[in-house]
Amino acid sequence: MKYKARIEVGLKPGHSDPEGETTKASLVELNYPVEKVKVSKVYELYLDASSQEEAERKVEEMCRRLLANPVKDNYTIQVEEAQ
Amino acid sequence: MKYKARIEVGLKPGHSDPEGETTKASLVELNYPVEKVKVSKVYELYLDASSQEEAERKVEEMCRRLLANPVKDNYTIQVEEAQ
Repeated sequence: MKYKARIEVGLKPGHSDPEGETTKASLVELNYPVEKVKVSKVYELYLDASSQEEAERKVEEMCRRLLANPVKDNYTIQVEEAQ
Repeated sequence: MKYKARIEVGLKPGHSDPEGETTKASLVELNYPVEKVKVSKVYELYLDASSQEEAERKVEEMCRRLLANPVKDNYTIQVEEAQ
């Protein structure tokens, strides 16, 4: 069966976020009263699996092996059957 | 007052997504049966504004001026009062 997964990967609190800092500086330069910008990434993908559990297990594994850095990233996963 | 905004910026359908393509190739190489990976970006930020409407207007403007490319990006905005 086909499943759709949505994975959001963001920095753990306390880790420096250079992209967020740069974005904040640009927004402040444009006169927006902005504080603390955090940048995260979202991966949306389709995968084959025999069950919801297997799909979740695979996506969890993908995060650990490729999509997230366990030292500095947090991630959340949502998996649902694809329409 | 302080508001918290969450902005998700992703490619419009039909635009090529090199980062998604590369991620897909890496996952397939690791033997995950993955199709079509789409990568989006999430900005979370805090800003000052006098009302919810003003906060939304400012965030909308930030997207048009800096965070999103109107030619190739879609974006969604959520604004709420910060705790």
